[in-house]
Amino acid sequence: MATVKMIEYEEASAEVRAVYDDIMATRGVDWINNFWKVVAVQPALLRRTWEGVKEVMAPGAIDAVTKEMIFVAVSVTNGCDYCINSHTAGARKKGMSDEMLAELMAVVGMANQTNALANGLQVELDEAFRDGGRS
Amino acid sequence: MATVKMIEYEEASAEVRAVYDDIMATRGVDWINNFWKVVAVQPALLRRTWEGVKEVMAPGAIDAVTKEMIFVAVSVTNGCDYCINSHTAGARKKGMSDEMLAELMAVVGMANQTNALANGLQVELDEAFRDGGRS
Amino acid sequence: MATVKMIEYEEASAEVRAVYDDIMATRGVDWINNFWKVVAVQPALLRRTWEGVKEVMAPGAIDAVTKEMIFVAVSVTNGCDYCINSHTAGARKKGMSDEMLAELMAVVGMANQTNALANGLQVELDEAFRDGGRS
Amino acid sequence: MATVKMIEYEEASAEVRAVYDDIMATRGVDWINNFWKVVAVQPALLRRTWEGVKEVMAPGAIDAVTKEMIFVAVSVTNGCDYCINSHTAGARKKGMSDEMLAELMAVVGMANQTNALANGLQVELDEAFRDGGRS
Amino acid sequence: MATVKMIEYEEASAEVRAVYDDIMATRGVDWINNFWKVVAVQPALLRRTWEGVKEVMAPGAIDAVTKEMIFVAVSVTNGCDYCINSHTAGARKKGMSDEMLAELMAVVGMANQTNALANGLQVELDEAFRDGGRS
Amino acid sequence: MATVKMIEYEEASAEVRAVYDDIMATRGVDWINNFWKVVAVQPALLRRTWEGVKEVMAPGAIDAVTKEMIFVAVSVTNGCDYCINSHTAGARKKGMSDEMLAELMAVVGMANQTNALANGLQVELDEAFRDGGRS
Repeated sequence: MATVKMIEYEEASAEVRAVYDDIMATRGVDWINNFWKVVAVQPALLRRTWEGVKEVMAPGAIDAVTKEMIFVAVSVTNGCDYCINSHTAGARKKGMSDEMLAELMAVVGMANQTNALANGLQVELDEAFRDGGRS
Repeated sequence: MATVKMIEYEEASAEVRAVYDDIMATRGVDWINNFWKVVAVQPALLRRTWEGVKEVMAPGAIDAVTKEMIFVAVSVTNGCDYCINSHTAGARKKGMSDEMLAELMAVVGMANQTNALANGLQVELDEAFRDGGRS
Repeated sequence: MATVKMIEYEEASAEVRAVYDDIMATRGVDWINNFWKVVAVQPALLRRTWEGVKEVMAPGAIDAVTKEMIFVAVSVTNGCDYCINSHTAGARKKGMSDEMLAELMAVVGMANQTNALANGLQVELDEAFRDGGRS
Repeated sequence: MATVKMIEYEEASAEVRAVYDDIMATRGVDWINNFWKVVAVQPALLRRTWEGVKEVMAPGAIDAVTKEMIFVAVSVTNGCDYCINSHTAGARKKGMSDEMLAELMAVVGMANQTNALANGLQVELDEAFRDGGRS
Repeated sequence: MATVKMIEYEEASAEVRAVYDDIMATRGVDWINNFWKVVAVQPALLRRTWEGVKEVMAPGAIDAVTKEMIFVAVSVTNGCDYCINSHTAGARKKGMSDEMLAELMAVVGMANQTNALANGLQVELDEAFRDGGRS
Repeated sequence: MATVKMIEYEEASAEVRAVYDDIMATRGVDWINNFWKVVAVQPALLRRTWEGVKEVMAPGAIDAVTKEMIFVAVSVTNGCDYCINSHTAGARKKGMSDEMLAELMAVVGMANQTNALANGLQVELDEAFRDGGRS
């Protein structure tokens, strides 16, 4: 279905297998989802993307489930079906309840609405909000 | 600057003033930001939008600062400058640190990148992610 | 400000002037707005774009002011400031009242919200809506 | 298929049923489309969204079929398949002919093209269009 | 599946057939893809769109395969599945290798990421980049 | 103007300086543009983003100027002003002529138009284009 051939573990090069192994170890699963099998069309892209995702999605100042919900918010706004489903699943696995999903959608819907109103009516930025409120 | 005349408190109708009063009381501030003054071009739109925002952004299963960060994530993806600045300011006021802002941006950037890769390579949804992992 | 040099009428080639003349005659104005002066960087692009706009925006099964409002709706969703301002001005010139503008924004805001909800919750298409209700 | 369970009428709470009843009465139909069954995951989101849609889409300064076409224009620009199909069906039911649909698409296509040109060449706003031509 | 009836060659008017003939002659194929059969709902839209595509996609200062890759980049960013698949196929036919496709996706992914960072952090334009570096 | 404080070279940590030095050496310039000074809010984000950009934008199966033009195409579609200006400048520095810029814009404009038509009319994918023409 993808526009490139998916690279299965069995046929993967040592470089690709090393990334696949790290994905499975980091996530505690025994399979690789299609996204990575497709990105593996270019081993450097696979390695770089995985290292970025691993680093960025790890809990830090923001916890892991919140990061997944932010990921869903972006994916919804972009209308990326694969990403919506895979990260909604990821958020659930990390503790997002149905009520949290409902509130997430309510915020995302409201944000898309008010973004349109602010753009459409060309609202001028208030002095107090300049630089995102950085004082 | 806006494409409609902003309605200042002094000249507002009783219906609009009632909303303005509720905005200030709810937020504990003594001024109205430009977004509302512009949306007030249609009192029904003002009332409906404010009631929605008030209800949706109140802490619930998701806390208030997280909701503001989700709002920023959507606004960044849509490229709405007013919304990015006003909700970054809002998130800061509710407790977002510089480190949290940096991590938020890292997640939003990564999500936009992988959304493009998933769309661009037309990745097929894995069975395990169908229905967003709803079992 | 533009990333290419704007072509003023005085310095324009005969080919470009012919398009400029047609724009002014069609619109009943005596000046050329910046969009066309910039697109004139490539005379073929200028001619093709103007002929398209002229044909598409002329009243037909849909009247001219409605077409301008549809143009605004797209521009708001894309967040194109130049387009929002120029086509809001165009719609006003063709008869859009402030009340119509307010209702237009209310619809555009609502559509962006429900688009997000439908995408975010991955709503399955109802049989009755298949093919856009074409029977 | 959705990322949350759809709430059917038979299993719905009194609060949800009241909204479903109003949707059917307002539209003169005897069924509920999937969008509402999914949004019903959070009764407050269902009620608020329906009340907004009902108020916004009712004929006012802009007639009902025009409002549906504007809704389609936004949905096309966002690439929301559910929304494109359901609102194209809605517009047809309210009187949009095939010729009107064709003209709608021509305008939406042209707007997306010229939005790209205006953004891409960073066209500076003409004085005459400032504030959307508001005088 | 489309929201309008597709016009097959056999049933097409002389005006539509002339465009279909030119598409097949220009591309050296003996069939018409669904996009054109759908756009043919309005013969003027068909003619204008085809003439535009033919003119724009012909090799000029930029070669044909590069133009197809640019088309794919836009389609990925908009999340248009039909366009991603048809123009990836088009680019392949004109010489895009798997390695080029992988690099294209890497650039598109990176651009979407840094676009989000620049918007999200509201980076101010450097003097050196003003007017896109036009001196 | 940015929502975080820009990190100037003089005040930067050794980790940040090392990246700044590599940016200047790789590009053969003696200054750092604002994007990097802002992303430096999080040194890990700076390092990861720069390493990605450096790797991805280097000439490979696709040459450097083409990569910059693809970057511009994405930025235009997202409406990111900073990115449009900085990468138009970058493409010019690497050899993009005014004629190439004009053709780039013509392709980007056309792609955004036909994306809208394909989405709006819900065109079904032709068998020949499935998997992006991968055989």
